[in-house]
Amino acid sequence: MALLVMKFGGTSVADLDRIRIVAAHVKREIDAGNQCVVVLSAMAGQTDQLIEWTRQAAPLHDAREYDVVVSSGEQVTSGLLAIILQSMGIPARSWLGWQIPIRTDDVHGTARIVGIETAEFKKRLSQGEVAVVPGFQGIGPENRVTTLGRGGSDTSAVALAAALGADRCDIYTDVDGIYTADPRVVPQARRLDKISYEEMLETASLGAKVLQTRSVQLAMVHQVRLLVRSSFDPPDEVPDDVTGVGTLVCDEDEIVEQQVVSGIAYTKDEAKVTLVKVKDKPGIAASVFGPLAKANINVDMIVQNVSADGATTDMTFTVAAVDLDRALGVLESVKEKIGYAELLGATDIVKVSAIGVGMRSHAGVASQMFKALADKGINIGAISTSEIKISILIDAAYAELAVRTLHSLYGLDSA
Amino acid sequence: MALLVMKFGGTSVADLDRIRIVAAHVKREIDAGNQCVVVLSAMAGQTDQLIEWTRQAAPLHDAREYDVVVSSGEQVTSGLLAIILQSMGIPARSWLGWQIPIRTDDVHGTARIVGIETAEFKKRLSQGEVAVVPGFQGIGPENRVTTLGRGGSDTSAVALAAALGADRCDIYTDVDGIYTADPRVVPQARRLDKISYEEMLETASLGAKVLQTRSVQLAMVHQVRLLVRSSFDPPDEVPDDVTGVGTLVCDEDEIVEQQVVSGIAYTKDEAKVTLVKVKDKPGIAASVFGPLAKANINVDMIVQNVSADGATTDMTFTVAAVDLDRALGVLESVKEKIGYAELLGATDIVKVSAIGVGMRSHAGVASQMFKALADKGINIGAISTSEIKISILIDAAYAELAVRTLHSLYGLDSA
Repeated sequence: MALLVMKFGGTSVADLDRIRIVAAHVKREIDAGNQCVVVLSAMAGQTDQLIEWTRQAAPLHDAREYDVVVSSGEQVTSGLLAIILQSMGIPARSWLGWQIPIRTDDVHGTARIVGIETAEFKKRLSQGEVAVVPGFQGIGPENRVTTLGRGGSDTSAVALAAALGADRCDIYTDVDGIYTADPRVVPQARRLDKISYEEMLETASLGAKVLQTRSVQLAMVHQVRLLVRSSFDPPDEVPDDVTGVGTLVCDEDEIVEQQVVSGIAYTKDEAKVTLVKVKDKPGIAASVFGPLAKANINVDMIVQNVSADGATTDMTFTVAAVDLDRALGVLESVKEKIGYAELLGATDIVKVSAIGVGMRSHAGVASQMFKALADKGINIGAISTSEIKISILIDAAYAELAVRTLHSLYGLDSA
Repeated sequence: MALLVMKFGGTSVADLDRIRIVAAHVKREIDAGNQCVVVLSAMAGQTDQLIEWTRQAAPLHDAREYDVVVSSGEQVTSGLLAIILQSMGIPARSWLGWQIPIRTDDVHGTARIVGIETAEFKKRLSQGEVAVVPGFQGIGPENRVTTLGRGGSDTSAVALAAALGADRCDIYTDVDGIYTADPRVVPQARRLDKISYEEMLETASLGAKVLQTRSVQLAMVHQVRLLVRSSFDPPDEVPDDVTGVGTLVCDEDEIVEQQVVSGIAYTKDEAKVTLVKVKDKPGIAASVFGPLAKANINVDMIVQNVSADGATTDMTFTVAAVDLDRALGVLESVKEKIGYAELLGATDIVKVSAIGVGMRSHAGVASQMFKALADKGINIGAISTSEIKISILIDAAYAELAVRTLHSLYGLDSA
């Protein structure tokens, strides 16, 4: 017998037929003798509709009232699932954020969970009752409804799993796990049985939409084992033993056969900014990145060429593609102060990354990469590295070629 | 300065443009120095959609979960109105049922309000903050969301007005008041400036959709003055003095020029059942109406003809049209026990009623009616009276003629 938190996203509860499939997944676990907490998102599209209404009501609005409006969608799906479970003979009840309660801070719209009361909750679970919890919502210090920000249902699920000491937190989604690369780009990509928290964090922050970065961090801190699996699998046919089902995100100690590189990711969501002929003097970086930081624009990779003449240099960095126009505007406005000859922006680039905790103990991963890409004639525009990741910036035209090349290079192709 | 509760129904909050008009009505009252509590319904059609989902989830479902689902619609409109009011510079916040709290009993789906805590609420109002309250919802003894049944937002508004000792409860609706008769039938019908609680109760129970019967009862018990007015009036042009705006439902003592009859109502929602040749013996009424009561079918008007032969009689009564088939089925099943020759059902009838507290002190109202209708050749199938109402059952074909005849008879036609 295990205590499971099961989380289902918006596409998994898009209509009553889909919610019935969710109920069948729950029934399978109950029949296997497990205790179940189910965390739900709103019906797909519902939260977007509610957000749009708050925007139409007033572009700048009270986040406390925004939370009242947008938290309603999860309330609907939770009540409906409880009704369906009951109709299948499974005791179930919904628990709204303020009923449990899930206490958060008062940062409405992007609140952080500060505590969850579990005594009554645990008692009911041990009596065989399924707890259905609307994700994404909590209650603030002033007794007002709070929401946790987009993708907050993952965070709700992980926080509940941590508070309850759950054996596992199952994230049901529209893919069946984490792959060594995007299967649409690399047909030889394999589903990973396990991935470490650190690797998952890097993958999530590189734009993989499967798990929200924040929920992975929370899982890592509280050592919550996350199983990413598909809600589109036939619910009855999934074996009780989850080995081979989905991808388990867990502590790296639990992963016996560690690969040096576990996956290749790429993202098109970045844009490149180049300042041509910047004066090469102390304090120049501050004068460039200070105004960007003030405008809340995150800078990712930075490359500063060695200056040929000793007086000027070219400076290149990346920002999120959605921030490009704003970034160019900011730099335009401080042109006098920085002093540059030309300002260039480009979006025809991609960032390709190799991720793996094995890099910590293996030298030569980066140099292998550079050689393999050079052999294919791919030019590297910028490089950034972390302890478990190497990222490069290249022309968008070479994206697929680079991903496939690296996937083969690190031995990830399936047999 | 007055403390006002303002209630807006589903068509008045159907979309953001309509909610902006609601906000303009509130602004007018705030600018006039009044304190405002605003009670809202869900967007038109939303509650029906939510109810349909619960029905699809399971035809027989836990009323506690039904309440969780269907209470979400009012939460949305309340948050949106608070946002719009704030954007107009008017301090406002939403108060969900559990936040105030509005305490109810545990009869989920049709809960009754048992108490409202007003201390914090009053403090905020006196500071000029508008309280926006989702109607229809409360919190039960076990900390679960409850709803008050269809039209419950009227009840929420009246209960809040009573608890707060409000000067008036304004019911904004899609008509501009209570008329002496349906203006579509009687072009000379006039809007009443005032109507007594008792008259309004009779009118509401006769099928007028403007106010829920329960909310009128509550208003009568707590002496809450209700103003029925149109939310489609231009919000800025309504004079601050409400004389001449809408219809005030109030104590009859407040109505100086009392008419004998204040209005003529009619309803097509009834059906006639006739038992032909029932044995005329003691206990026969019980054997007919007992089984109907057990099946939860309300019987309205009853006529038992004097038996010609002293052995059998014809018995006629009315039930709600929606209950006709069930009523016939019930009587079919106890035919042996009752003993009748034939069972007839008819829906081509209407009930026409004259209502007025003045009847209490005026004799001859009924005899005037019978004579006027006889003069027009209208046959009366059944009669029922209360202290302030006379109802007759006639052929549906004569409905309009009868209503117009009585409207003239009692001097209600406008000049």
